[in-house]
Amino acid sequence: MRIDMIHGNGGKQTSSLINDIFIKYFSNKVLNRLEDSAIVSVKGKIAFTTDSFVVSPIFFPGGDIGKLAVCGTVNDLSVMGATPKYLTVGFIIEEGIELDTIDKIANSMAMAAKEARVKIVAGDTKVIEGTGGIYINTSGIGEVEKAGISISNCKPGDVILLSGNLGDHQATILSQRMNMDNKIISDCAPLTSIVQNLIKESITIRCMRDITRGGLATVLNELASASKCGVDIEEDELPVSKEVRDLCTELELDPLYMANEGKMIAVVSKRQAMKALDIMKNSRYGKNAKIIGTITEGSGVMITSKQKGSRILEYMHDEGLPRIC
Amino acid sequence: MRIDMIHGNGGKQTSSLINDIFIKYFSNKVLNRLEDSAIVSVKGKIAFTTDSFVVSPIFFPGGDIGKLAVCGTVNDLSVMGATPKYLTVGFIIEEGIELDTIDKIANSMAMAAKEARVKIVAGDTKVIEGTGGIYINTSGIGEVEKAGISISNCKPGDVILLSGNLGDHQATILSQRMNMDNKIISDCAPLTSIVQNLIKESITIRCMRDITRGGLATVLNELASASKCGVDIEEDELPVSKEVRDLCTELELDPLYMANEGKMIAVVSKRQAMKALDIMKNSRYGKNAKIIGTITEGSGVMITSKQKGSRILEYMHDEGLPRIC
Repeated sequence: MRIDMIHGNGGKQTSSLINDIFIKYFSNKVLNRLEDSAIVSVKGKIAFTTDSFVVSPIFFPGGDIGKLAVCGTVNDLSVMGATPKYLTVGFIIEEGIELDTIDKIANSMAMAAKEARVKIVAGDTKVIEGTGGIYINTSGIGEVEKAGISISNCKPGDVILLSGNLGDHQATILSQRMNMDNKIISDCAPLTSIVQNLIKESITIRCMRDITRGGLATVLNELASASKCGVDIEEDELPVSKEVRDLCTELELDPLYMANEGKMIAVVSKRQAMKALDIMKNSRYGKNAKIIGTITEGSGVMITSKQKGSRILEYMHDEGLPRIC
Repeated sequence: MRIDMIHGNGGKQTSSLINDIFIKYFSNKVLNRLEDSAIVSVKGKIAFTTDSFVVSPIFFPGGDIGKLAVCGTVNDLSVMGATPKYLTVGFIIEEGIELDTIDKIANSMAMAAKEARVKIVAGDTKVIEGTGGIYINTSGIGEVEKAGISISNCKPGDVILLSGNLGDHQATILSQRMNMDNKIISDCAPLTSIVQNLIKESITIRCMRDITRGGLATVLNELASASKCGVDIEEDELPVSKEVRDLCTELELDPLYMANEGKMIAVVSKRQAMKALDIMKNSRYGKNAKIIGTITEGSGVMITSKQKGSRILEYMHDEGLPRIC
């Protein structure tokens, strides 16, 4: 059975869609009340964020738009030092999509939410004309466990950690679109464990960011600009899988500008850098973590490799791939 | 200048769009930090909700998709007895849209947010292929001022108030799509004043709902079902403007199933009904408020008029208009 425009009219058919699929997978006391807002309790300061997902294709090795939508928002909360608690989901569905497809996506969202220990407490569904596509917005709130984490907090001497291999997600989407035969899998995952372990072990975290559109290069430039400092990166230290490295060579791509969906950087004091690295390496999704550079007195991002020497690492200009997330 | 796919890549062009338009209109201390999540403080219990907007046309008499997106989410928070505090905004923009159009929409959102006293604290922008359309998700949190307001709370003997004329928003969208020459204007508005005045004057509110997709008939059926009670409505008491009435006669539509975007029902105890009506009538956007019926021991929704006698008012089936909000 397929979705048609009538599923979006707010009447009986919308109600069936909500009950037969969304409530089935997302069921919890707050959501099931189907009030106009969810009523929840949260302690202390709140982190609040939103993200819309338009990735194409909808399904890809390592995930799908549903898993991505949950992990993306969970990660934006986590990297602000918050424990993700509640999500809302807004579906914009194109007519013609199979109900089975929506069922699979909802199931995948429910599994990701379970892993990240968040509840989906409110939702909305709209149907538009089209050819079977789907767009998902997730918004989330979390309890701030560690205050003062900010992109503007980095200080000269601080050390930059990267939680794992660069470029996996974008390389996956690109491979799917180009029908390439390789073993690349999206890194789409919740970063809650890494973050919570760093906080639990009392690491003084200056700043964390997940690496998405624009890649590591964009995150580092934003950080340098917001903290009014410089960034020095060792290119030879950057972890990239052999498969992604091969793809980049073949297509003349730079993993520094490619999107991940389950990687982050953390900036910590020099004193705690080795301890933080150890925590990351022992956390889920962090085993390839590396120390990749330091914060300096200067400005902008400088990258150095033995072979190529030093160069300035610019913001991304035109390299981005449309509908990567 | 028009949006192209590159505005969605997360690099320099996305950043320009954010700074040149969104920050210009939505500017506040929390948003301007451009962190991965907004950090905010909220007292007590939280109302949390989401809504996506896909209305077509984007601009219509009385509002546009931006005003609608702010009011819709503000209203979903308000009718749960919460004071709306913070919104997030997720834009999904089709390539080809004029930057001026986005500018107008953002301006309109900022004005609606100002009236409703909410701050836009986080956002996200994606660009997809298409022909100049735009979809907006708004999610919001509010402080619960009055706990226990719920669609399942109505009791036999309670009185149902309606805040004003039915059908204005849907009649507006329909008139625009059919190029009809009339003076119908969307009622798109924040219901914060009505709700806050009812709370301030200590009205014991059992339930409130704003009337959107599915119209009054759908809201009343949801209420009867959730509260396990019946609803009796006096059709002759329902306020409908002459213009909307004429349109309905011409197109054989029923205002009971038509969407509003600035109307609500409130269910209150019989003892406080007249006082509540008086408060509504003296609140902004409430001057045509009416007592329209009562909660009964039975089940389902019964509607009675002098001319037509009594009949059961069903859930909406196929009458809905696509992309009304």
